[in-house]
Amino acid sequence: MEAEAMPFVEHLGLVEDKSFFPDHTPFQAFTGTHGACKVTVVTNGKDKVYGTGVDNVGTVPASLATFLALNKMTTEAPDKEHVLINAGTCGGFKRKGAEIGDVFLTTAVANHDRRIPIPVFTPFGIGKLQTINAQHLADKYNFKMGICTTGNSLDNTEKDDELMLANDASVKDMEAAAVAWTCELHKVPFLGVKVVTDIVDGDVLTQDEFLENLGTAAKSLQDALPKVVDYVCGKSHSEL
Amino acid sequence: MEAEAMPFVEHLGLVEDKSFFPDHTPFQAFTGTHGACKVTVVTNGKDKVYGTGVDNVGTVPASLATFLALNKMTTEAPDKEHVLINAGTCGGFKRKGAEIGDVFLTTAVANHDRRIPIPVFTPFGIGKLQTINAQHLADKYNFKMGICTTGNSLDNTEKDDELMLANDASVKDMEAAAVAWTCELHKVPFLGVKVVTDIVDGDVLTQDEFLENLGTAAKSLQDALPKVVDYVCGKSHSEL
Repeated sequence: MEAEAMPFVEHLGLVEDKSFFPDHTPFQAFTGTHGACKVTVVTNGKDKVYGTGVDNVGTVPASLATFLALNKMTTEAPDKEHVLINAGTCGGFKRKGAEIGDVFLTTAVANHDRRIPIPVFTPFGIGKLQTINAQHLADKYNFKMGICTTGNSLDNTEKDDELMLANDASVKDMEAAAVAWTCELHKVPFLGVKVVTDIVDGDVLTQDEFLENLGTAAKSLQDALPKVVDYVCGKSHSEL
Repeated sequence: MEAEAMPFVEHLGLVEDKSFFPDHTPFQAFTGTHGACKVTVVTNGKDKVYGTGVDNVGTVPASLATFLALNKMTTEAPDKEHVLINAGTCGGFKRKGAEIGDVFLTTAVANHDRRIPIPVFTPFGIGKLQTINAQHLADKYNFKMGICTTGNSLDNTEKDDELMLANDASVKDMEAAAVAWTCELHKVPFLGVKVVTDIVDGDVLTQDEFLENLGTAAKSLQDALPKVVDYVCGKSHSEL
């Protein structure tokens, strides 16, 4: 979301590149350099299609923005090593040790709202993918690690609960699995950096807890993201 | 799905254009002319990312394939009138008069699995969009008309049932709302042509009914699609 991205954009001194995405998309890109790395921060922009003006959350805009960004970056710099960091807020599961404000690095992603009970289609719907396993990075900054389960709803039904448990999720978001699918098309490694705004298996409604803790989580994300970028920049994927 | 598209591709004598989509996407395009129209049939291809080999169903691949196709077509022929026809199978609601094998033309689309109970975000999640209202076409061939509700699951929970009813849906699919969103980015009109494989508010499990009736529905679609293309070709949107 834009409000989460802008402090990081300012921290790195990135500048908006208005020609990065086609005009008819809502997406925004901010580019610059950081040490030996080129850094591009992408946001999914605000909704104009439905006239709501809210951030374009969820899997469809996230996948499209990712595809267009990676297509451009891998075409323009085919010989460079690319990595996609999907940063944002998430719900956390207390049964997996998550607390408000925690930073989680993903080890894998999966979907919990793509139920296709035809056996050959079921694993496609779940769509589990391994992501970069950044154990050294997690150790250095006491980040937690775990699987991120993705769905297009902020709330969760009993069926969602059952499938998030089956996915062995530590955190839950609304984009990661779609972004990781799109990364896979480009053979670009994916790393999720997710900060906990609410406890999914707790007693408070997600929407109330989310709004209450968004500020705290955003600060935690602003603290973590520069560390992640500093650490990742200049390292090969196996060193993370 | 590929099995549904190929008879239509053969009927129109279209030829695969292997350079239409970027190599690293799974999508396929078949192009040719029909009367005064250029026709491109797009399929979402088979899954290689998860290694399942099944058709790439659901909103994320559908939106991406639509974006890339429309981007190419509107760039190459900016002065032409474009229309996107999203053809496929669907579930139907008997409370709205749907029967197995029926052809429905969409009047609008919406989502039932993007629940965001923060008031400013709720209408974004539902994402209702009007589509081409092809009343004349429906009258001519006795097609039915109604709203299509989209979700990434083949089955339906009680919460899904509640939201599909709230969307006033006649039919339910897994792609239309995402395809229509992407059409809206390009200002290309959308028309859904959906053939009923199963009754959502009936007594039989969707997955069983779907597999049993897929052949019948595919035949019905093969019968309807050439009529739709014949009718649409050469007409302005307001004449449909």
